[in-house]
Amino acid sequence: MTDQTPLTGHSIVAGRPVPGEAGTTRAVDPRTGAELGPEYTLLAVEQLAEATRAAADAAPVLASLEPGPHADFLADVADRVEAVGDELVARAGAETGLPEARLRGELARTTNQLRLFARVVRRGDHRGVRVDPAQPDRTPLPRADVRRRLLPRGPVAVFGASNFPLAFSVAGGDTASALAAGCPVVVKAHNAHPGTSEIVGRAVSDAVAAAGLPAGTFSLVYGPGARIGQALAADPAVAGGGFTGSRAAGTALMRTAAGRDVPVPVFAEMSSVNPVVLLPGALAGDSAGLAQAYVTSVTGSCGQLCTAPGLVLVPAGADGDRFLEHVAAALPSVAGQPMLTPGIAQAWRDGAAAAASRPGVTEVARGPQGEGPNAPGALVLATDVATFAGDPTLAEEVFGAFSLVVRYAGVGELTGLLEGLEGQLTATLHLDSGLAEDVQTARGLLPVLERTVGRILVGGWPTGVEVNDAMVHGGPYPATSDGASTSVGTAAIERWLRPVAYQGFPEELLPAPVQEANPWGLTRRVDGELRPVGEPARP
Amino acid sequence: MTDQTPLTGHSIVAGRPVPGEAGTTRAVDPRTGAELGPEYTLLAVEQLAEATRAAADAAPVLASLEPGPHADFLADVADRVEAVGDELVARAGAETGLPEARLRGELARTTNQLRLFARVVRRGDHRGVRVDPAQPDRTPLPRADVRRRLLPRGPVAVFGASNFPLAFSVAGGDTASALAAGCPVVVKAHNAHPGTSEIVGRAVSDAVAAAGLPAGTFSLVYGPGARIGQALAADPAVAGGGFTGSRAAGTALMRTAAGRDVPVPVFAEMSSVNPVVLLPGALAGDSAGLAQAYVTSVTGSCGQLCTAPGLVLVPAGADGDRFLEHVAAALPSVAGQPMLTPGIAQAWRDGAAAAASRPGVTEVARGPQGEGPNAPGALVLATDVATFAGDPTLAEEVFGAFSLVVRYAGVGELTGLLEGLEGQLTATLHLDSGLAEDVQTARGLLPVLERTVGRILVGGWPTGVEVNDAMVHGGPYPATSDGASTSVGTAAIERWLRPVAYQGFPEELLPAPVQEANPWGLTRRVDGELRPVGEPARP
Repeated sequence: MTDQTPLTGHSIVAGRPVPGEAGTTRAVDPRTGAELGPEYTLLAVEQLAEATRAAADAAPVLASLEPGPHADFLADVADRVEAVGDELVARAGAETGLPEARLRGELARTTNQLRLFARVVRRGDHRGVRVDPAQPDRTPLPRADVRRRLLPRGPVAVFGASNFPLAFSVAGGDTASALAAGCPVVVKAHNAHPGTSEIVGRAVSDAVAAAGLPAGTFSLVYGPGARIGQALAADPAVAGGGFTGSRAAGTALMRTAAGRDVPVPVFAEMSSVNPVVLLPGALAGDSAGLAQAYVTSVTGSCGQLCTAPGLVLVPAGADGDRFLEHVAAALPSVAGQPMLTPGIAQAWRDGAAAAASRPGVTEVARGPQGEGPNAPGALVLATDVATFAGDPTLAEEVFGAFSLVVRYAGVGELTGLLEGLEGQLTATLHLDSGLAEDVQTARGLLPVLERTVGRILVGGWPTGVEVNDAMVHGGPYPATSDGASTSVGTAAIERWLRPVAYQGFPEELLPAPVQEANPWGLTRRVDGELRPVGEPARP
Repeated sequence: MTDQTPLTGHSIVAGRPVPGEAGTTRAVDPRTGAELGPEYTLLAVEQLAEATRAAADAAPVLASLEPGPHADFLADVADRVEAVGDELVARAGAETGLPEARLRGELARTTNQLRLFARVVRRGDHRGVRVDPAQPDRTPLPRADVRRRLLPRGPVAVFGASNFPLAFSVAGGDTASALAAGCPVVVKAHNAHPGTSEIVGRAVSDAVAAAGLPAGTFSLVYGPGARIGQALAADPAVAGGGFTGSRAAGTALMRTAAGRDVPVPVFAEMSSVNPVVLLPGALAGDSAGLAQAYVTSVTGSCGQLCTAPGLVLVPAGADGDRFLEHVAAALPSVAGQPMLTPGIAQAWRDGAAAAASRPGVTEVARGPQGEGPNAPGALVLATDVATFAGDPTLAEEVFGAFSLVVRYAGVGELTGLLEGLEGQLTATLHLDSGLAEDVQTARGLLPVLERTVGRILVGGWPTGVEVNDAMVHGGPYPATSDGASTSVGTAAIERWLRPVAYQGFPEELLPAPVQEANPWGLTRRVDGELRPVGEPARP
């Protein structure tokens, strides 16, 4: 924190600080349990309309931005967030307990993804231009000229996540993709990191002002958690939502948005246990190394990652036993770290204890508690397929450094277990790709996994999500709302777009992206054929 | 109807006729009111699971079909539907009252769109392949190879429409696009044209068998209307739905599907009044010709088209008066045609009478009643902006040959009216593009229309929807469920797809579409760059 930028403790509504009328909240340093200043005022539900109305007013301006200024704006947001990086990392560390190295990495990811979306805006393929030229001489009826492009849906509500105070929060993936699509954004700050949110929110607001965009392009609101969230999802000016968090909260937002007079989508990324399958061949190799990598993935960021490996399927038998011995040997050397909030730490303790107490469940290893009140040690439990299949509570996510090993007796048991799982973000296969049995099993499992998850890994661990064109951070419900979208990577922009066709327009009335002259040099599909960037539609 | 193919009167469940246990229904010839044989048995809700389970079993086979056989299957469906064309046109004529020429056109459209989707399957860009190659030397962390493709969602429920017994029914756009995506289909037949449905259903089933696909690839079920529809939307094996019909029925299906334990989307195409704006310059020209084209569009297929011009905005003043005089002169020469069902004809009478009786509404013209009990004459009413704005019932669709003219006093009134409309499938502007005032008004209206509709026309009339790459037959709710999809054109396939990423896979485990060798010759985005069809990813 520097003197130049004292935190106001208020929402930023269309560029100006607005004190809330629904009480206050304070951040807590989970490392110590100490409260942090300043006090944050919470907006009453009735105060929300100012933000969403301003967003609706800003929408047409954003929708018609040219690629250059649009991309420059996103890059400027990245620059401004980077410029307050030290302040951010310090404040986020105090508000979340996450270590500096992790926060530095997350900061880089946040600015990188803003810049990636700036490149997407310049590239322009997200505009989905298609041209079917007129055929005036066609019989029996002439064909009219039809051109389509994708347009922004309108104002988007973004619900900040607790576990990525930068990359899935105020200027995180949802905000970056929505702004890149041309949608104004109203962010509901996560109350666990209000100061971090304000610092980032100010950077975004400053970029909005510097670009000469309407102030309603961006608002950041603090409010009484679920109530303000529900109000945002229900607000008639809001055209869609992006959420990362719990299954209960995400599903409640989805249902509210689907039940409106005019239903809109909430793209929610929720719970996942991310099954990791160790096939027999994988255990014949460096079993100790594999166990160490597992422990690292389970305990990284205290397991507070959407893609943490909460369920690991290990073959019955001596090789599997040996793997678990390595896990039991490795885990005690990893001390607990403070979890994000006292509430999250308590929920982890409750969930872990409940799982440990289920009949047929045994403890594999327990890590030592860390410093402070909110740093429980990691826990790895084990059970067999029959117990797992008979006890649905064991398939539920325990958010934090927790993992359940299920020992399977053969391919049949393994397949049956995977077929019974709910939708997941990821699934991982470890195998010896030189071993015919492993390869055959993997081939057989692929269709099951393809139905169930958004990303399948061979080798490695699911934590650590690349931000690129091919990434899918999604998966069937309850991993995400409908499994047809991703909240990470450039394809995340598709959530915020809808198509409009223009029929029989004279060139001078057409918007630039669909003009015959193609002034923005967009890739388009013309009369069924893909024309690479820059090539005119009909040379 | 030929002797070779007697109708069974039963549902086709995974290839075999299944008598229903929930009563029976018969088609009615709306031209005469006479019942048609045979009696159709209705499936009880409990009988549905056989179809949806078979569809779920078929899903993995369809998902892994190679492009050649997949496209051949769709083309074979088209051939088989075409082969029974005479039988179809005769039966559909008796069941719907639609004239032969219209049904011949609809048949061609139906087979053309099946063949278009066969081409889409061969083209393969709907697979959305993206490749981000590994960067083993990247710092601080190496980058893993990530590849994504789009996969079918799974079994799709298709709800046949009343008004297009071929093109939006058993083998219509929803079925064609879902099968092209690789989704098994369970069609709920519209009870108004059961025989037409069975003839087409048999053709599809025969194509399934001839292709050696699992019988569960396609089922056609008859049932007690809303109950069986709701049961389909609620069925856990169903991964999504496609609906064309009324706002009430579509919204009920959407809500049911969104409220499931595992929510799924229903893509519903519902109601629209398709505003047509006549700017002053358009009336200075061939006003009589414009009026004649309007009358033709309102009365074509008795107005039983989603895109019929139900709302026409005409400037106040002498030119507008003259236009309405031409309408009044033209309409009496167009006799009513039988509507699709006695119920639809009655609903039209009720809706038209209710609109005509509203205060401030006057009659412009009324067409003569046609032959038989279900052929009311067309009706054109008129009112002013203030009356329209004050009476929300006037903005509701009256399904059939009905149109409301609203006289506007200037650009302000016009803009306000359009801003107040619900989501629509189309909007149309008629203007003199040589007239600066008209062009300026049109430019100002475009952002309003882009927010409100899926397709904007300049000139022409909205009826007649091309099936091509650029078409958008969609629009914000209540025109369609969420305005981000189209139910006509090649982009309709996107509704049935979801992405899956493959990380760190050895080539031999990768599915063909994402293999480095690109054996299917798919267009892909590699490391951010679009590579046209056939070019290897890394030459």
